[in-house]
Amino acid sequence: MHLNRKPIVKILFAVMALVGTSMLLPLAVSLIYGETKVALCFAVVCVPMIVIGLLVIKIVPKGDNTTLRMRDGFFIVAMAWVIMSVLGGLPFMISGSIPNFFDAFFETASGFTTTGSTIVANIEILPKGILFWRSFTHWLGGMGVLVLTIALLPMLGIGGQKIMRAETTGPTLDKISVTVNDSARRLYTIYLGVTILEIIFLMLGGVSLFDASTHTFGTVGTGGLSTYNASVGAFHSVYVEMVITVFMLLAGINFNLYHFVLTGRPGQMLRDTEFRTYIGIIFGSTAFVSVMLLIHNYYDTIGKALRYAVFQVVSIITTTGFGTDDFDTWPIPCRIVMFLLMVIGGCASSTGGGVKVIRIILSLKIIRRAADIKLRPNAVKPIKIGGKTIDENTLAAVKSFMILYALTIALGTVVVALNGFDLTTSLGSVIACVSNIGPGFGLVGPSCNFILFSGPIKFLLAMFMIAGRLELYTIFIMFTRTFWNENR
Amino acid sequence: MHLNRKPIVKILFAVMALVGTSMLLPLAVSLIYGETKVALCFAVVCVPMIVIGLLVIKIVPKGDNTTLRMRDGFFIVAMAWVIMSVLGGLPFMISGSIPNFFDAFFETASGFTTTGSTIVANIEILPKGILFWRSFTHWLGGMGVLVLTIALLPMLGIGGQKIMRAETTGPTLDKISVTVNDSARRLYTIYLGVTILEIIFLMLGGVSLFDASTHTFGTVGTGGLSTYNASVGAFHSVYVEMVITVFMLLAGINFNLYHFVLTGRPGQMLRDTEFRTYIGIIFGSTAFVSVMLLIHNYYDTIGKALRYAVFQVVSIITTTGFGTDDFDTWPIPCRIVMFLLMVIGGCASSTGGGVKVIRIILSLKIIRRAADIKLRPNAVKPIKIGGKTIDENTLAAVKSFMILYALTIALGTVVVALNGFDLTTSLGSVIACVSNIGPGFGLVGPSCNFILFSGPIKFLLAMFMIAGRLELYTIFIMFTRTFWNENR
Repeated sequence: MHLNRKPIVKILFAVMALVGTSMLLPLAVSLIYGETKVALCFAVVCVPMIVIGLLVIKIVPKGDNTTLRMRDGFFIVAMAWVIMSVLGGLPFMISGSIPNFFDAFFETASGFTTTGSTIVANIEILPKGILFWRSFTHWLGGMGVLVLTIALLPMLGIGGQKIMRAETTGPTLDKISVTVNDSARRLYTIYLGVTILEIIFLMLGGVSLFDASTHTFGTVGTGGLSTYNASVGAFHSVYVEMVITVFMLLAGINFNLYHFVLTGRPGQMLRDTEFRTYIGIIFGSTAFVSVMLLIHNYYDTIGKALRYAVFQVVSIITTTGFGTDDFDTWPIPCRIVMFLLMVIGGCASSTGGGVKVIRIILSLKIIRRAADIKLRPNAVKPIKIGGKTIDENTLAAVKSFMILYALTIALGTVVVALNGFDLTTSLGSVIACVSNIGPGFGLVGPSCNFILFSGPIKFLLAMFMIAGRLELYTIFIMFTRTFWNENR
Repeated sequence: MHLNRKPIVKILFAVMALVGTSMLLPLAVSLIYGETKVALCFAVVCVPMIVIGLLVIKIVPKGDNTTLRMRDGFFIVAMAWVIMSVLGGLPFMISGSIPNFFDAFFETASGFTTTGSTIVANIEILPKGILFWRSFTHWLGGMGVLVLTIALLPMLGIGGQKIMRAETTGPTLDKISVTVNDSARRLYTIYLGVTILEIIFLMLGGVSLFDASTHTFGTVGTGGLSTYNASVGAFHSVYVEMVITVFMLLAGINFNLYHFVLTGRPGQMLRDTEFRTYIGIIFGSTAFVSVMLLIHNYYDTIGKALRYAVFQVVSIITTTGFGTDDFDTWPIPCRIVMFLLMVIGGCASSTGGGVKVIRIILSLKIIRRAADIKLRPNAVKPIKIGGKTIDENTLAAVKSFMILYALTIALGTVVVALNGFDLTTSLGSVIACVSNIGPGFGLVGPSCNFILFSGPIKFLLAMFMIAGRLELYTIFIMFTRTFWNENR
């Protein structure tokens, strides 16, 4: 193992301290709501995490070689998400809200990866502090605790570029900013701004600060864990649904595009191919689903059909997973559209999961070109997006991602099905986890939950969430010989 | 449209004459069994086809430019399979056995593409001549009517290399022989030999010449249409099942490898990576399925479990589709294995369909390399199979094939599901057709048939069979602008 241990240890303990520190917020919430026991549980967990974390950072020497290589970066990211999911689950276990380890790990991984699948049958009986932490993991995970950590890395004397590569979602990262730190700072400034805006808008609609915060965490992180059994449907408010729809939609857009808007060039955003396709898919799907719901007499008015269609469509394509209706009871054509949206996912460099719109666009162009090549083998044309040529290395990465995605889904489905579940449930749960959506189909549909699976299957699905969140390769690499055996 | 019309017309009419000529065999069978009316139906169809076909070949001038370009080749192959499926279905329609056009087209496409899906509910009441023709289309399709046509092309004054490219299945074609004609002649000599051998072996087991022939056509073409409702299970004979198993297995091997065996170098065959993987998958799957069938008490003895496991495993991986048991009633783990085998398919340059074993091997290697590249971006290693480097163009073709395959299955499933069918049935039917297998899952499982679909869906599935048989790109190319618009 040729990993650069000292800086890795430092960073991972920094992550631990960070997770511990962020538990101070739910601890405060618990105290506000008079849940002393729950507050104590948070304290018991977070104080040692902070203390030990900070101590280790202080004690461990910088080491001779503080530069991180690619493999160190991948290792850190992968381990960080696993550690976060284990440690973040401790309050659930200790407080007795989710006593079982596999359940707690699943729920926390679901939070940090912004998946939003749950194993809790009756959410509403959980203490406020626990509910707050559960939603807050979405917010932390949403932009990536590690993107935050990047801001801390210089203090540890380590550059963060290598981690950025493993962390940032999507195949292209616009080089708008010069340094990674600038980029990270800009991204989470926008993130924070959007968060505050949504909380304000929700509260204007009469939502309590607690509900507004928790649902905002679930929205901007494209997570989808709610504090109500009926999810967003519990608010029975068109206004609340519309606010959340708009913010889910915003969270699914490439955050780099906000830079254009903030610098007075919204036209640049509107000209972006991925953005236009994303908006087009949402409009098209909403129209189709609404019409189908009307035709099948699922709803009697256009207003109702549109209201429920647009919410579920946006919730699923952005991989949020909030619900105001059980789309698994919709007519088959609608279910199929939802299924496709699950696979497509949000835009690159958003908090959304899935394959990502840009990869779908590129895949279609790759197939078209492959057909052309068969006709004219010597005329290889470059593939362009918005007039710009996409380089062949990026295309190769897209192709291998698509194949790995398909194989991961296929093999995951097999493993789940081997445990006796039907095809719809197996495929639905694996896609819901790998694409970080939340609800799936069949036994894990919007009105159901993941409690029915055995411990090992829950663990596997949680690992799928982490793998999906880290664009598959970050985790897959750990299983290659090259990673562990070869030098350099 | 920049197609080279005159030679295209000639070849397509030659195909028509050939299909007409091959109808003389079922015509004879009808006469032998005293089915005068059916014989008349065949005569009414085949005589004009032969006469018109030959006349057009004679009359149409050679034209100035007799060289075929790539796009001409693709067009010929695609059109030939459509024309064959339309004309080949005429006897079914005229005789009243399958009166509906969509049904007849589906059944004939299923035959020529060696898929073996059927819309006939009660096969056993059909006349012998019709049953014979139905199976014979498998044999004709198996090796590709066009590979036969290649031998005829020189007589038309046209070289066949360009067609070979669109026709031959699998990503690699070993350059064992120098010319295409030699290669084609060798392939169908082996094909004829295997056919005769299987008929003899089946007859040694007490099977009638009629049954032996029809089931041999279904075996060596990896088709799977039987003359019995219970498929091969109707023989109630372990010997017959074993013979058919062995020959299905042989039909799924790269036919080029037989050249090694025939020239006294069987070791070359045993060293072939794809062959070894194929055999390994069959052994592994059979063992797994047998054990599962025993554990779930589906069968009470090891003998029975093995007998039914090996038959269905070989039948499905070779994409034949014969059955001795309804695998859709097996325990879920077994069904999942069958599902995977459906996707994998046979070896390249065999009569089998599916993705092909070699593409699966290459895909796994491509993913592994993509992981390596992420760790060491500057160290691009070549991908090797059996010590030989696979060139990057082949790899690019494999990647785009895999993506196109996944998208075809996904979109096909959506279209079928949009018509109100459940996910298992929709996915099962599309994979069964695209991979040229025959039976699927759910409502199109081994004990069911495709009659439940509407006309347009049957037509679409038939087109999927043809697309799958021609490795997708041959058909997909027809829908690109490059094919129709650009010069050269």
